[in-house]
Amino acid sequence: MINLLKNHRSVRRYAAREIEKPLLNELLEAATRASTTGNMQLYSIVVTTDSEVKKQLAPCHFNQPSITQAPAVLTFCADFNRFEKWCELRQAVPAYNNFQSFFAAAIDALLAAQNFCIAAESKGLGICYFGTTTYLTQQIIDVLHLPKKVVPITTVTVGYPEGETPRADRLPLAAIIHENTYTDYSEKDINRLYAEKEALPENLRFVAENNKETLAQVFTDIRYNKENNERFSEMFLNAIKGQGF
Amino acid sequence: MINLLKNHRSVRRYAAREIEKPLLNELLEAATRASTTGNMQLYSIVVTTDSEVKKQLAPCHFNQPSITQAPAVLTFCADFNRFEKWCELRQAVPAYNNFQSFFAAAIDALLAAQNFCIAAESKGLGICYFGTTTYLTQQIIDVLHLPKKVVPITTVTVGYPEGETPRADRLPLAAIIHENTYTDYSEKDINRLYAEKEALPENLRFVAENNKETLAQVFTDIRYNKENNERFSEMFLNAIKGQGF
Repeated sequence: MINLLKNHRSVRRYAAREIEKPLLNELLEAATRASTTGNMQLYSIVVTTDSEVKKQLAPCHFNQPSITQAPAVLTFCADFNRFEKWCELRQAVPAYNNFQSFFAAAIDALLAAQNFCIAAESKGLGICYFGTTTYLTQQIIDVLHLPKKVVPITTVTVGYPEGETPRADRLPLAAIIHENTYTDYSEKDINRLYAEKEALPENLRFVAENNKETLAQVFTDIRYNKENNERFSEMFLNAIKGQGF
Repeated sequence: MINLLKNHRSVRRYAAREIEKPLLNELLEAATRASTTGNMQLYSIVVTTDSEVKKQLAPCHFNQPSITQAPAVLTFCADFNRFEKWCELRQAVPAYNNFQSFFAAAIDALLAAQNFCIAAESKGLGICYFGTTTYLTQQIIDVLHLPKKVVPITTVTVGYPEGETPRADRLPLAAIIHENTYTDYSEKDINRLYAEKEALPENLRFVAENNKETLAQVFTDIRYNKENNERFSEMFLNAIKGQGF
């Protein structure tokens, strides 16, 4: 079980094989058993298998090919729509048009997503998360016809893996864990904790291919740069507000 | 494996037994294998076992007794501090003082948290999430000495369970899943999907104990009411901004 978690890799190439419906339902059942705020289950999962809808989703994720290639694309959404409809039909007055409620629903969606992914991997399937869900959020809302109080939080592609995928590197545990309270990092700590990552051949190649001096510059100048961070912040906040939070 | 996920329950009473250090490290290793935005690992885990620090954390979670009773309290934090320090030492100019970056880091923290919880349950431990982490956030920041660019997102208590805990109810799968695109709920749908939940003896008792007419009213009037939602929204947003996002 712990070995399964440790063997996770992001699978971006899938065999041309559908996921059997009873299996998919079993994975979704496992997803709904994740912890949820006050047992309100403030999320929905949109399971897209139709190739026409997948084609419409692709540009929302910058046309990454696995969106159309994967047999199923799951969009995990923060959802207060269902809960509010229930309240209104039960003489209860909901007040969930605020950030705290949005965030609680986002937590619910993410814990369910991770349960789904682990269940899928335990059955030999491969998964990949798409952080792009919080970039072109409004486009996803439009394609999936999400009503007010529903915001997409993350997207997962799932299917039988094609070929082998290497496991990504991770920082040593000491980089992530703090005992009792937070101990801030000295320059020496940072050098030690990032040394192995920076020395990996694939990361050295990555720096060279991008014509940068350091691996960190690939992140700040290209992959997660100021302009995009600011533009996508504004777009995501607008989408959250536009959906009624 | 899927049975393990399906058997999850929130454990709030713990035996007086420490978690062995090698076991705890193994669970934390499994946590760090969760998917992470661009492999940046934008989170930290503060593992609090010291009873003095647990005592200080308790009021941050409204003195729920399991905070001091659990052998370990884990605070999962969105963390851009470590990454920015690395950038600055590598001639890279970070621009992560925005909402998009905060949210990416929060996603990372939550996926790691859920991996930790599943790993813990697979070893016979019990866990419970504390949504209160996004309420008195500033107090947690102070107790754990979190520097700028670090925001607590969720808290998990973990330990060997004491006694039995019943499994919580869940809505039927049809309430959560949408095929291809979102299908909004009719009044009939809501009545059908919530019928089983509303008829459960523990939920009927819950309504009676709270002197309410419907289960929904227990949520809107008491557990997650307008005043708290709005107050905690403002406090959480202030804490996020105060930490430099």
